Amino acid sequence: MEILQEYKVGVLSPEDKEEPCDVSDPYSGDPSRHPILKVNSQKPFNAEPPPELLTDSFITPNELFFKRNHLPVPNINPDKFQLVVDRPPGAKQGKPLKLSLKDLKAKFAQHEVTATLQCAGNRRSEMNAIKQVKGLDWGTAAISTARWAGVRLRDVLLDAGYTEDTPNLLHVQFEGLDQDITGTKYGASISFKRAMSKDHEVLLAYEMNGEELPKDHGFPLRVIVPGVVGARNVKWLGRIIVSAEESPSHWQQNDYKGFNPNVDWDTVDFSSSPAIQDLPVQSAITEPRPGEKITPNHDGNVTIKGYAWSGGGKEIVRVDVSLDGGKTWKVAELTGEEKEGLAWAWKIWRLEAAIPVECNEMTIICKAVDNNYNVQPDSVAPIWNLRGVLNNAWHRISVTVDQDEH
Amino acid sequence: MEILQEYKVGVLSPEDKEEPCDVSDPYSGDPSRHPILKVNSQKPFNAEPPPELLTDSFITPNELFFKRNHLPVPNINPDKFQLVVDRPPGAKQGKPLKLSLKDLKAKFAQHEVTATLQCAGNRRSEMNAIKQVKGLDWGTAAISTARWAGVRLRDVLLDAGYTEDTPNLLHVQFEGLDQDITGTKYGASISFKRAMSKDHEVLLAYEMNGEELPKDHGFPLRVIVPGVVGARNVKWLGRIIVSAEESPSHWQQNDYKGFNPNVDWDTVDFSSSPAIQDLPVQSAITEPRPGEKITPNHDGNVTIKGYAWSGGGKEIVRVDVSLDGGKTWKVAELTGEEKEGLAWAWKIWRLEAAIPVECNEMTIICKAVDNNYNVQPDSVAPIWNLRGVLNNAWHRISVTVDQDEH
Repeated sequence: MEILQEYKVGVLSPEDKEEPCDVSDPYSGDPSRHPILKVNSQKPFNAEPPPELLTDSFITPNELFFKRNHLPVPNINPDKFQLVVDRPPGAKQGKPLKLSLKDLKAKFAQHEVTATLQCAGNRRSEMNAIKQVKGLDWGTAAISTARWAGVRLRDVLLDAGYTEDTPNLLHVQFEGLDQDITGTKYGASISFKRAMSKDHEVLLAYEMNGEELPKDHGFPLRVIVPGVVGARNVKWLGRIIVSAEESPSHWQQNDYKGFNPNVDWDTVDFSSSPAIQDLPVQSAITEPRPGEKITPNHDGNVTIKGYAWSGGGKEIVRVDVSLDGGKTWKVAELTGEEKEGLAWAWKIWRLEAAIPVECNEMTIICKAVDNNYNVQPDSVAPIWNLRGVLNNAWHRISVTVDQDEH
Repeated sequence: MEILQEYKVGVLSPEDKEEPCDVSDPYSGDPSRHPILKVNSQKPFNAEPPPELLTDSFITPNELFFKRNHLPVPNINPDKFQLVVDRPPGAKQGKPLKLSLKDLKAKFAQHEVTATLQCAGNRRSEMNAIKQVKGLDWGTAAISTARWAGVRLRDVLLDAGYTEDTPNLLHVQFEGLDQDITGTKYGASISFKRAMSKDHEVLLAYEMNGEELPKDHGFPLRVIVPGVVGARNVKWLGRIIVSAEESPSHWQQNDYKGFNPNVDWDTVDFSSSPAIQDLPVQSAITEPRPGEKITPNHDGNVTIKGYAWSGGGKEIVRVDVSLDGGKTWKVAELTGEEKEGLAWAWKIWRLEAAIPVECNEMTIICKAVDNNYNVQPDSVAPIWNLRGVLNNAWHRISVTVDQDEH
């Protein structure tokens, strides 16, 4: 009982029985979703918005924000919720720190950060087109941006007794309250150094775009690790463990890693590659859509739009767009957030470009550059990997041009 | 006189007159160099070693280390040398901190770091092959690795009265003692945050591979900014200025920046791009040499070698090598330094691969991946820029195979 005690999250109250509950379906408690989303998997729920809606606004509305669940959405009573934070080894108080939502909001200063989250599998469909991979067939919209509010992970760790001088090699593990039928919970970790860094602004967030965190996004509490792959931004956060090793979870050890394009399931050694953390520079075209028939305006121009982002706090400094399959490149206009320090949010880009009158078919390409001059690779095949993650090749689309209307 | 006083470095003594001095040639005091170096410019001296020597050892011997001078090598009397460090605005002591070499070694702890330096123009010759750029025609060897010893810039700045809480946006400018005939000195800057970071290990170095800093490498004192483009590693350091703005020097403001491939000298706006700091992921083949006739060994194998490095402390985690022009990729063996924290040094890579018996000509390609999963772009043309910097495209060479000997 003593061992189990620290895993206790709350006590079921009579009201909890009102939650919809079909014992034969662990997903029966999942929330309803916006019908415009393209569903890549129903159970667990994984869906992305139409790409052209992504670049309608700098901030993605909550209901359109891409949803990437690994397990059923847990039903958590916010009044009973307690975050469990393990104490440092040898701490005077041996029992873990337990914090209710009220405790979190009362004890720690609120911080806000505008951060783009991207799934490692964003644009996997382009890898699938080369050779089938294992994974959900994400298009270009497994990426979204929100304004998150919560408390700093750093402040919570300091309160639990950790200090900045704790040796470099430690990790901070996050355990979700979502679990499979065997009781295995979602888990992931980041470095202790990142967790304690003021510059990296890692949050335990309870608000998304000014609203209570939606159920699909981790209600009542999730981790936001700006600049880092979605998979480490653990939702429905239940427990924090500081340790010498990374999270032992499947998603840290045997997934979300990149490999040489000639490594396949019969030859893969998951221990040979690092867990994805900071993501590489990325961009995609959201308008027009692939295969669309585009009509130049009265000046013979078309508008091309998209997003660009880079992980690790690197800012996008340029997006190049080609209308001739990569022979020549124009510089797009960027819009984004003015911010001191590291850059966590994407840029929306836009180019109004003249279409030659004789042009009936066109390949549009975009590629972005970040402030460390990281660039995107030209093509998908050389970065293909068995899980179809990390596709950040130039984004190419083909369209036809309706010259008659012009 | 009061204003000029702080620029005073020392007083000429009679011995100084013994230095070779041809008044008509400001380069007459330059040191002698190893004859094996490929000289890209004699005055100022710019030279690189044969690439195959680079990967003979993890540490590059001082005499083979690439040399990139912008101006004549200054003759500095180490006994008279004083580093001038400006005080923070409003500091009690208005006068700058002045430190002799003896002061530096006595007042501050010695630190060592193994760091790879790379010129922004490394591999410029491949850009030149596409369209002529302005700049020295560097091959693949404007990159080298040494063990540097000196004091931490952070410790010196703390001693001068700066604290970590100085606002984010400040810069640390370095002024060299090398100057042109008009008295303009070499200069560059890095962010104050980087300068003060314990993790980034920025040094004021007086030793290179256990020897006194050679004249060509900044004797008696230079800056080592691990992970950052060579141009910020200011040699013959004379003065440190902390300021709200970056260095006003030509080399910070109007050079060492990247641009869209369709921007040329008639359209360039240097203020539109950030100064290069952290360099992107890089790799090159050093053996065999382009055009070489290679002879498979008795097993029908050949050995391919090269280097791989990434800026900003990112570690190389994989090098892929293709012997069929990029269709298939093998993973090379890496050797390097075991180190906690950020990675500043390159990896030497090596692949022993079978050559098909019918193969007479072969294109060998390498591409590296760092621990943030940054990858190199496939081709040079789309990253071409008017100054020919930042070429980190896949390195491709063609060789012929001597099958008769096999």
